[in-house]
Amino acid sequence: MDESSFDAALSELQQDRVHGASELARRSLELLGRSAQEATAGTVAELRRTLELRCKRLAACRPSMAPVQNLLDEWQQALARRGEDRLAEFRSAAAEEARQWVERSRMALRQVGQNGADYIGADKTIITHSLSSTVVDVFERLKERNVRAVVSESRPLNEGRILARQLSQWRIPTQLITDAQLGLFVAQADFALVGADSLLPDGSLINKAGSCLLALAAREQAVPFLVCCESFKRRRQVMDPAALEEMESEELDAPRMPGVRVRNIYFDITPAKLISGWIDEKGVHRAAAVRC
Amino acid sequence: MDESSFDAALSELQQDRVHGASELARRSLELLGRSAQEATAGTVAELRRTLELRCKRLAACRPSMAPVQNLLDEWQQALARRGEDRLAEFRSAAAEEARQWVERSRMALRQVGQNGADYIGADKTIITHSLSSTVVDVFERLKERNVRAVVSESRPLNEGRILARQLSQWRIPTQLITDAQLGLFVAQADFALVGADSLLPDGSLINKAGSCLLALAAREQAVPFLVCCESFKRRRQVMDPAALEEMESEELDAPRMPGVRVRNIYFDITPAKLISGWIDEKGVHRAAAVRC
Repeated sequence: MDESSFDAALSELQQDRVHGASELARRSLELLGRSAQEATAGTVAELRRTLELRCKRLAACRPSMAPVQNLLDEWQQALARRGEDRLAEFRSAAAEEARQWVERSRMALRQVGQNGADYIGADKTIITHSLSSTVVDVFERLKERNVRAVVSESRPLNEGRILARQLSQWRIPTQLITDAQLGLFVAQADFALVGADSLLPDGSLINKAGSCLLALAAREQAVPFLVCCESFKRRRQVMDPAALEEMESEELDAPRMPGVRVRNIYFDITPAKLISGWIDEKGVHRAAAVRC
Repeated sequence: MDESSFDAALSELQQDRVHGASELARRSLELLGRSAQEATAGTVAELRRTLELRCKRLAACRPSMAPVQNLLDEWQQALARRGEDRLAEFRSAAAEEARQWVERSRMALRQVGQNGADYIGADKTIITHSLSSTVVDVFERLKERNVRAVVSESRPLNEGRILARQLSQWRIPTQLITDAQLGLFVAQADFALVGADSLLPDGSLINKAGSCLLALAAREQAVPFLVCCESFKRRRQVMDPAALEEMESEELDAPRMPGVRVRNIYFDITPAKLISGWIDEKGVHRAAAVRC
């Protein structure tokens, strides 16, 4: 994988508005695996420098997404632990490590889905916002267990419709609503359930803008608000709200008007106090107490 | 105004998604004024019966909108107080009463705008949801006083863009956001300000879906949430949430999917406890205490 094809792949990751943070983390690892095998290098040291630089660029391209940073760190630490290799050996070992971390990430996702489905159980209505691969996994496991769904469209790109289509294929009875109706429909649900782009050290949630509104409405209606995500989505540092990614204003498809700035911040922060429980691959971690 | 042209006008009112409840109430009165002058009738009693029937049909066509009911009641009561008239006299008097109630409604709106602008004052940022004629009036009065705006698009029909265009013409610096970003942007505002489709007897607000989410986010960020509307928007009875108007699902422009029901409830209810103050033509009524 030469510099220009890496650049093209990086740009694609940066533009990706459809896939969640874990999927993009796995795609980043796959790019690094291919880089390890194919990047031009005369020595192991040279290849290590190239890979390190590519890791940095990958992590920087989606700053709101902790799993990208976390999985790349795991991979780099594994490589750092290796002794002296010959170049060919190092290439294979680095690619194999990348493959293994992709696989660990997929296994964690499935275990989160299992834990979520076990916790929620049969005959329930789930309201969700945006499109999360862990939430999709929970629905798949509950599809024969009389689950029902309320799904918001999730402006500006309406990825809620992608989720609705999947639920339709699984014959899960679904109501599709505007984001503005989240407050109206949360009362119909047994659980509000969302994925995460990342978690802050205190358990606060960074997820698609609107998640915080769903959490507020859920608290108001005494509906438990659950977050399901793999543990490597946890950030090690507190995040500055100013660092939340903003995307192209054109996505809102609003007419241009002098003096009107169209804003398109993709993520909001849901404070930990609004979260009733966190579901990861190890189990369900319930809030000590639900505070108002 | 014969039966078929009345039917056509009624259908137009029923389909109207752009104008607020007060404007539709005034249009209803204008229809009745024209009916009083033009409807076929041989006697005053016959004309009264026709007008009474048309009042009922107008009130029933927009059940979420209290001002339609309230203004038509005022007009009917004024007519009921009249003694025996000759037909021609009754026609003119009924039309004149309708004209006067339209004018009273417009004056009340302007007074609400004045009271709102006085209360909010100069150098403030206001966040709002949907399109309200009283909120527009407040902005007009503050346009030379360094007011700034955050406006949500207000799906499904994006009437927030109409407001943004008006603010742009007044050179008011404006940020236009998706409804899902209300939670992110409320912290930038000094006040959240919305109009009302109606108020319940306890002060709870019926307004465009999403208003309740803005109120919840405003409380979370300690931003005062104000409602500005004329006093005749107050309902005399508690309203069943099930009676909130639902519009055509096609407005969401979502693809058809088996088992997926697209929902389009236009209004939500914001409990009175989330409201910091009510601004009407008589002044500002502040909440006794802001409860959590």
